[in-house]
Amino acid sequence: MKTLTVNLPGAAYPIHIGHDILEQHLPRLLEAVSPERVVAITNDTLHRLYPGRIARALEGHPWPVELLTVPDGEQFKTLDTLSTLYDRMMALAATRKTAVVAFGGGVIGDMAGLLAATFMRGIPLIQVPTTLLAQVDSSVGGKTAVNHPRGKNIIGAFKQPEGVVIDLAFLETLPGRELRAGLFELIKHGIIRDAELFDFLESNQAQFGGRNWEFWEEAVFRSCRVKAGVVEKDEKEAGLRAILNFGHTLAHLIETHTGYDQYLHGEAVGVGMLFATFVSRRMDHLGDDAAGRIRSVLEPLIHPVAMPRLDVSAFEGLLMHDKKASAGTLRFILLKALGEAFIREKTEPAELWPLFGDFLAQSPNLLQMKGGSFKSSG
Amino acid sequence: MKTLTVNLPGAAYPIHIGHDILEQHLPRLLEAVSPERVVAITNDTLHRLYPGRIARALEGHPWPVELLTVPDGEQFKTLDTLSTLYDRMMALAATRKTAVVAFGGGVIGDMAGLLAATFMRGIPLIQVPTTLLAQVDSSVGGKTAVNHPRGKNIIGAFKQPEGVVIDLAFLETLPGRELRAGLFELIKHGIIRDAELFDFLESNQAQFGGRNWEFWEEAVFRSCRVKAGVVEKDEKEAGLRAILNFGHTLAHLIETHTGYDQYLHGEAVGVGMLFATFVSRRMDHLGDDAAGRIRSVLEPLIHPVAMPRLDVSAFEGLLMHDKKASAGTLRFILLKALGEAFIREKTEPAELWPLFGDFLAQSPNLLQMKGGSFKSSG
Repeated sequence: MKTLTVNLPGAAYPIHIGHDILEQHLPRLLEAVSPERVVAITNDTLHRLYPGRIARALEGHPWPVELLTVPDGEQFKTLDTLSTLYDRMMALAATRKTAVVAFGGGVIGDMAGLLAATFMRGIPLIQVPTTLLAQVDSSVGGKTAVNHPRGKNIIGAFKQPEGVVIDLAFLETLPGRELRAGLFELIKHGIIRDAELFDFLESNQAQFGGRNWEFWEEAVFRSCRVKAGVVEKDEKEAGLRAILNFGHTLAHLIETHTGYDQYLHGEAVGVGMLFATFVSRRMDHLGDDAAGRIRSVLEPLIHPVAMPRLDVSAFEGLLMHDKKASAGTLRFILLKALGEAFIREKTEPAELWPLFGDFLAQSPNLLQMKGGSFKSSG
Repeated sequence: MKTLTVNLPGAAYPIHIGHDILEQHLPRLLEAVSPERVVAITNDTLHRLYPGRIARALEGHPWPVELLTVPDGEQFKTLDTLSTLYDRMMALAATRKTAVVAFGGGVIGDMAGLLAATFMRGIPLIQVPTTLLAQVDSSVGGKTAVNHPRGKNIIGAFKQPEGVVIDLAFLETLPGRELRAGLFELIKHGIIRDAELFDFLESNQAQFGGRNWEFWEEAVFRSCRVKAGVVEKDEKEAGLRAILNFGHTLAHLIETHTGYDQYLHGEAVGVGMLFATFVSRRMDHLGDDAAGRIRSVLEPLIHPVAMPRLDVSAFEGLLMHDKKASAGTLRFILLKALGEAFIREKTEPAELWPLFGDFLAQSPNLLQMKGGSFKSSG
């Protein structure tokens, strides 16, 4: 078991990482809060896989535990679902001394987190992320949100939890595709800010699909440490935190263009990171060797992406819908070395279009347009 | 013109107070933000009274200005109305660099504030409160919220604005009843924490209904200074901030019991403050002289309140619905002197019931039960 402390102004909280640690650490975190009751929020899939799991982890402790389930899936990460959660909290007569436990992947963490951020202007929150993606990404840093029909994570808040319990045992029931999707974000943390983490992952690629909990504990710990370090320096995304969006510009385009229902976020980020690496190389920021090493770790994990054909105006329009876009330009995250990302401000979508064409031409097995070949003359 | 600075960890912002100062100070506050555009949120009544007011105040400045109106009234301070605001922000292609100007009373300030707190996890907010109540109360301190069908201000966040412009000129069109309702909260700040402010108000009672802007500037400034001082010491309502709820325990009961549609919040608070003063005297915390002075300032402003008959269990049930209630007891705010409130923890609703009966018996012109006389034997 490893523990990482996230130090933010006015809030320091622990992230506990290990295999089979829920029973030990969830009650401890709740003791520090001393709530009057606990409301666990989960989805129906997890509830089927682990019925009564949270209640059992809290057996013998004084807090009454209620469970609220929502349907499983990103399409339910909406203001409507959140509204039903407010209703059910009120029906339970929840008070400011009710603690919320978010028990699930990123959708649950984001939505239960926003509930805890806004119910009576804020009640205690503990994150129990059950997917690899949530463990290394969304459970660290305090971002919470629901989607709007016109954009992802449009309605949200920053809400730091009282603590995070990352129990690797939940990875045992995680579908392989989701495990791989989470790996992209984990590897991303090495690529953008921790060359040693990248080395460690590169030399342990054989463990990526397995259940070597020592490997996962180390990998998740180091990955969370990178993210926590970035968040500590820039909680509200004024600057540095943007490097966490490495790979996300193209990922958002892919997700929006394919309706968010064909590819997992991590999968889109995987392709997006390869594109950002390609651009870093082409703009002469990154050397050949580093670019090659990144490709050789990422490419074996890629599930090829196919999306409807795009012309230049659709390409630019989709890029500008990114909520980090501002005044017609983008912040594009590039690499100057392995472990060293930087922010390229005021990147024009038009600059990226020919590079995107070249990337497609070079990587037909990674990303394809359906309905005809790509024309960069657009 | 007077300026007060609110100093909070990570945020310091000015409150400008004066007559006819919007044109001067709204653009200045926006300049500090340098937004890409401005979205002003108001209600249809203000829009009719002051068409184009915000746009005109920003004439000659570079920011495009959009206006979003919502229907006027507390009954529209809901998640549904907020949801339409998110939709309209998205339709305008608002970004993180869009600044929100809340132009209205407490309902607008609370709802536009929550919009700014949660749209893309937070965008800049400037408060332009147009009612006396909002000027001395809701625009200072960063509380934002919408109501839930089962309770007021259940869904909300803390969101400190970039600045507040209190233009007293808006009081000219404020109905007398609303002006008086706001006065109760203004006077409250003197009663709980600033005996000099109370003295000033006591010796200027003749100005309460008039347009002596010098008086109002001084009164609003001092009142905001009290509130800002309390908020600075306790932003998130961990302790001290609770004294601002002086008078609010009974006020919430009155509002809930009468369906929030017969009395203005300030009016209910007026009666609630008299009750809290009565309890302070009866429990021997407060002297006769101070209690008498408070009564002599408040009573002439009271609009008598009538509500359906209550028995003891309804009384206790309504008190426990207050969101500050916890584990069957209340935090009741009492006075130990003029200008010195304190928090009485773990107050039992049952203790208050006989005092409530005596208060009713003593004050038949302030508060009445409809449908029979009050029986404290309940």
